[in-house]
Amino acid sequence: MRIAVLGVGLIGGSIGLAARGRLGAEVVGFDRDRDDAARALDRGALDRAVPTVAEAVAGAEAVFCACPVTALPELVAEALDRSGSETVVTDVGSTKSALVDAAADLAAGDRFIGGHPLAGAETSGVAGSRADLFEGARWYLTPTARSQGVMFDRLHGLLAGLGARPQALEAAEHDRRMATISHLPHVLANALVEAVADSLGSGEAGKGAAVGRSFRDGARVAGANPEIWADIFATNSVAVTAEIDRAIAAMERARELVAGSDRDAIARWQGKIADRHRGLIEADLEVAPLIELRIAVQNRPGTVAELALALGRNSVNIEDMSLDPSPDQRTGAVSLWVGGVGEARRAAEIVADLGHAVAEIEEPG
Amino acid sequence: MRIAVLGVGLIGGSIGLAARGRLGAEVVGFDRDRDDAARALDRGALDRAVPTVAEAVAGAEAVFCACPVTALPELVAEALDRSGSETVVTDVGSTKSALVDAAADLAAGDRFIGGHPLAGAETSGVAGSRADLFEGARWYLTPTARSQGVMFDRLHGLLAGLGARPQALEAAEHDRRMATISHLPHVLANALVEAVADSLGSGEAGKGAAVGRSFRDGARVAGANPEIWADIFATNSVAVTAEIDRAIAAMERARELVAGSDRDAIARWQGKIADRHRGLIEADLEVAPLIELRIAVQNRPGTVAELALALGRNSVNIEDMSLDPSPDQRTGAVSLWVGGVGEARRAAEIVADLGHAVAEIEEPG
Repeated sequence: MRIAVLGVGLIGGSIGLAARGRLGAEVVGFDRDRDDAARALDRGALDRAVPTVAEAVAGAEAVFCACPVTALPELVAEALDRSGSETVVTDVGSTKSALVDAAADLAAGDRFIGGHPLAGAETSGVAGSRADLFEGARWYLTPTARSQGVMFDRLHGLLAGLGARPQALEAAEHDRRMATISHLPHVLANALVEAVADSLGSGEAGKGAAVGRSFRDGARVAGANPEIWADIFATNSVAVTAEIDRAIAAMERARELVAGSDRDAIARWQGKIADRHRGLIEADLEVAPLIELRIAVQNRPGTVAELALALGRNSVNIEDMSLDPSPDQRTGAVSLWVGGVGEARRAAEIVADLGHAVAEIEEPG
Repeated sequence: MRIAVLGVGLIGGSIGLAARGRLGAEVVGFDRDRDDAARALDRGALDRAVPTVAEAVAGAEAVFCACPVTALPELVAEALDRSGSETVVTDVGSTKSALVDAAADLAAGDRFIGGHPLAGAETSGVAGSRADLFEGARWYLTPTARSQGVMFDRLHGLLAGLGARPQALEAAEHDRRMATISHLPHVLANALVEAVADSLGSGEAGKGAAVGRSFRDGARVAGANPEIWADIFATNSVAVTAEIDRAIAAMERARELVAGSDRDAIARWQGKIADRHRGLIEADLEVAPLIELRIAVQNRPGTVAELALALGRNSVNIEDMSLDPSPDQRTGAVSLWVGGVGEARRAAEIVADLGHAVAEIEEPG
């Protein structure tokens, strides 16, 4: 198997290391910065570094575009243009709607599936790349109704092979969700630093003010990589603004409570937040044994993406997937593996609602 | 030396362990809950557990009141009432103005010095107590103009002996500073949990939403111990409300920037916050070799507290202090040790402004 990586920083380099080390793939790399390409080669992230996108994508089964978000539309278009009709093209950008919309207009857009691994956003550079960066990490995929099911299937399997947990989501839903769970925490960290710096003053008086653990934790991501985060905030402006409004509303409710000095009302509020906090952490930690769902589908373009999206939208995570028999036949079966009985029942309902026959298969042993 | 601890939870128990282990003190404990007192005895935090405040404070050089904040005024009053004229009484509450105001009206109020160690606020119970809980930890003291200098001196030395770094601050300034560096981070963590929980919804859809590292860090203290934090917010309402307003203003500026989608303006903002963040962390980490300042003072009540407060207000940390000669003479000398040349120069200016002669002594070796 041959993989192309376009842009060999932290993420591109880690994809190269993981694909070579875990899958035995041949990895061909391209970077506009020749020095970066040489460093990636030195690090063992690439088998070969080539000077053009065309050379990198030639004969590749999958192409990963891993440049800054604002440069992605152009790079993805070039990768689709230069690669063959059997090649899936993806990216690793932190926001998806703008890119997916741009790719939708391209002739070969049915071979593009947007991607976003939740890993390593706070550092950059190939020097920090690691073969295990994606081990157990969520990796969102944003296929559209136009995406070829076989492309989605291949990419899903490849990412699972890198150690990641791929999950399909619509691009707009991805951007909303990231605004909630990632971009908003960054804005709040920034606001904390601004408020504390404003309050302590910039002079000598702030020295040794013992900004303790709660500040350090709350501010940890404040001012994170300005180039990356400017791209993220600028390309996800609407969703982030909505989350900021939600947080301001929560702050205003907190202000009213604190100003009222009603100790018991404050204790009830604090207790309710402890419950919600626990709920969010536990929901994220839940794991369960895998259960296979076998689904009979009409083998037309987009069916797999439709299934994956419907499940992803309802936060059913597909831990693994296979198409059977081969996708050139008119009907076929899709196997999905999901974690736990409740999740499987939910998945089966969603799939049935889409009009497919579905059976739950007991895992042997 | 005999120490009394009134209330033997996490903090009281740790004071007992440190005073016994590090200072060889005899520690006598009282707790309204007899089981807690027995547990503290089992843990080795006390030499004796006694059933009344009067028995605990008899013959003690220092009394630590370590009960919940809202019960402190009554306990401090009883401790002052039952203890001798040579006994310093202090507390470990997280907010200070209300308590210090209450103690100011008491006959023996000149023997009370409010205190607040920045350690262990997120757990409770004597089971978590440790002899090294205060090692290197800031411990604020809030003397007033009425406080006896000799009481402040003794308490300062005792806390340094427990491994802490005591620093004097006016009670109101303490409460403002804690509102900034501790209480605001807790409110923002709460707001983050509320916004994310509101956004993801409480149903199945939130499952496996991958609330990642930035959320986990930002939310770490959300909903912390509701009983303790209700007391803190309720007794520091004015200062916390002011900090919330500051944070809301910062959020509104962030909202405007993000809504504008101006990538370069956002990058400049993010870069400026990175600088301010670094500045706050570095200011807190700065350490330097100790320099002694020798100050000639009129040995009247309150002089030492006045010095300590003026320095603390300007965030000059007094790492150690001694009174010389004995405090019953009419004039005397106070030695203060502060960290670093810049800090020493600033301290000397502040002391000179108060009308005292001051000399800087080079440390030998």
